[in-house]
Amino acid sequence: MKIGLDIMGGDFAPQATVLGAIAAFKMLAADQKLVLIGDKDIAVSILQENNFSPDNFEYVHTTEVIGMGEHPTKAIVQKPNSSIAIGFKLLKEGELQAFSSAGNSGAMLVGAMFSIKAIPGVLRPAITSIVPRLKGSLGMLVDVGANADCKPEFLPQFGALGSLFAQYVYHIENPRVALMNIGEEEEKGNILCQAAYPLMKESKLINFVGNIEGRDAFEDCADVIVCDGFTGNVILKLAESFYDVCVQRNIKDPFFDMFNYEQYGGSPILGVNAPVVVGHGISSPEAIKNMVLLSKNMVESTLVEKIKLAFQ
Amino acid sequence: MKIGLDIMGGDFAPQATVLGAIAAFKMLAADQKLVLIGDKDIAVSILQENNFSPDNFEYVHTTEVIGMGEHPTKAIVQKPNSSIAIGFKLLKEGELQAFSSAGNSGAMLVGAMFSIKAIPGVLRPAITSIVPRLKGSLGMLVDVGANADCKPEFLPQFGALGSLFAQYVYHIENPRVALMNIGEEEEKGNILCQAAYPLMKESKLINFVGNIEGRDAFEDCADVIVCDGFTGNVILKLAESFYDVCVQRNIKDPFFDMFNYEQYGGSPILGVNAPVVVGHGISSPEAIKNMVLLSKNMVESTLVEKIKLAFQ
Repeated sequence: MKIGLDIMGGDFAPQATVLGAIAAFKMLAADQKLVLIGDKDIAVSILQENNFSPDNFEYVHTTEVIGMGEHPTKAIVQKPNSSIAIGFKLLKEGELQAFSSAGNSGAMLVGAMFSIKAIPGVLRPAITSIVPRLKGSLGMLVDVGANADCKPEFLPQFGALGSLFAQYVYHIENPRVALMNIGEEEEKGNILCQAAYPLMKESKLINFVGNIEGRDAFEDCADVIVCDGFTGNVILKLAESFYDVCVQRNIKDPFFDMFNYEQYGGSPILGVNAPVVVGHGISSPEAIKNMVLLSKNMVESTLVEKIKLAFQ
Repeated sequence: MKIGLDIMGGDFAPQATVLGAIAAFKMLAADQKLVLIGDKDIAVSILQENNFSPDNFEYVHTTEVIGMGEHPTKAIVQKPNSSIAIGFKLLKEGELQAFSSAGNSGAMLVGAMFSIKAIPGVLRPAITSIVPRLKGSLGMLVDVGANADCKPEFLPQFGALGSLFAQYVYHIENPRVALMNIGEEEEKGNILCQAAYPLMKESKLINFVGNIEGRDAFEDCADVIVCDGFTGNVILKLAESFYDVCVQRNIKDPFFDMFNYEQYGGSPILGVNAPVVVGHGISSPEAIKNMVLLSKNMVESTLVEKIKLAFQ
């Protein structure tokens, strides 16, 4: 298995990404090779500074970098030698079994759609994020930003993608899928939710348990929470800000610690033809390590094959 | 000044509402009369149990109650003798200068729209909620649920309503208005935000400072945060759930304490022809007291007149 890692992506790259690669290496089996994509000279010099043999990794040297603020579609087209564009090229050609980056997340999404493309039957791939819950279990929030505007028929699919991820990567049996809404009753909500509810109820791909509200997000009422990407992105960033508040105010509590993005490693793009994980821009070495391990878990679980089968 | 209070509304009514009325009475001037709307016999017996003279209040005896789970429009039409329907009737007739209830919030909204109606020029009245911020200042979130689906032109108006409320009731000068979005740049967001941004930039009624993201909600970047009612409702309930988590986990911190809904008293419906405040369903006597005081402040500020003038 070869796992591609964009070492140029993220606010603290390449230092944080290369240190993360070292940390990940220690947790990978001998046949799980990490391929560092980016400026090889810089990578080697960081490794040497840390007394770590560069021979432990494979390298694909690239000469361009897509900045965090660049326009995703333009950047992917105009920088074919960027670490992100090259990563997707190798993923498409089967040289890599997974690709991850903490760089420009829009470029990661566009790169995935242009190269490996959506799985047949998947109307819109979606980005999922892991949310902690009060009782210690984990939940999945789908979509958190790939699709700011959604048609009703996208939502049961987001539920199915999140369910398969929960089931095969997090070993949650028969995941309960809920729709994020502003009332519990079936007829509540905006037009999108009102139209999506019956579709979710009918869908054979999900175990639909109905609507939940913002206040239920951290309760154990559902394993997969479905929403449009606008709502999901607002929820995700708001939840992260609570963790930041706790850090700022020196509040120590195991529940809030679970909001530390570092331990989840990143957000998979679900519904494309290979495992892709997008890391948080501020990824630390710990976050990069967990992003690589999540990529590895996605490959091992054969999640992409499971999704293909479900959407046939 | 006569302030109407629905003593039948809320999960802990009429006990919590009558005790709240007692607490509010102690903070009102002699010419600020509280009018208790609901079952007079029950009210008087609660007052007597608490050794409080019933003569301190005026009463409007009503015989019906709209339940928390009832369909708002049906309930308002089918229960003309309910405390909410009667409250709005008196407000419309000028017998009351403000009306508040911690009961069915949908019925409060429908009641306001049917009786006192929207101020000319206001496309859609909106419910605003007060959000605490890390540095101690207060912000307004508009809309938090009156309008689950919005047209772009509603959003600058929500900003204007929130600004006038912030300015005249909370004495925030030249309030900064931001659009809740999923990126900071002008072109980011869903179709609604993309279309609303230029309208907000052009609006002469607001001091527009651009987009903010979920993570900025508790920072001091804006005084009024504008969003559609679906997004606002999710944000509000999510933020409340963080407070609940703190209470459950016995985390004591002044910032999280500020999320205690009790101290804000309720959420005004802005853009209708008289002051109306909707309380939280779980309102305690403290929350009811603050709801009454907020209603009083809205009357004293002549906010409704200020809104009429701005929207002329």
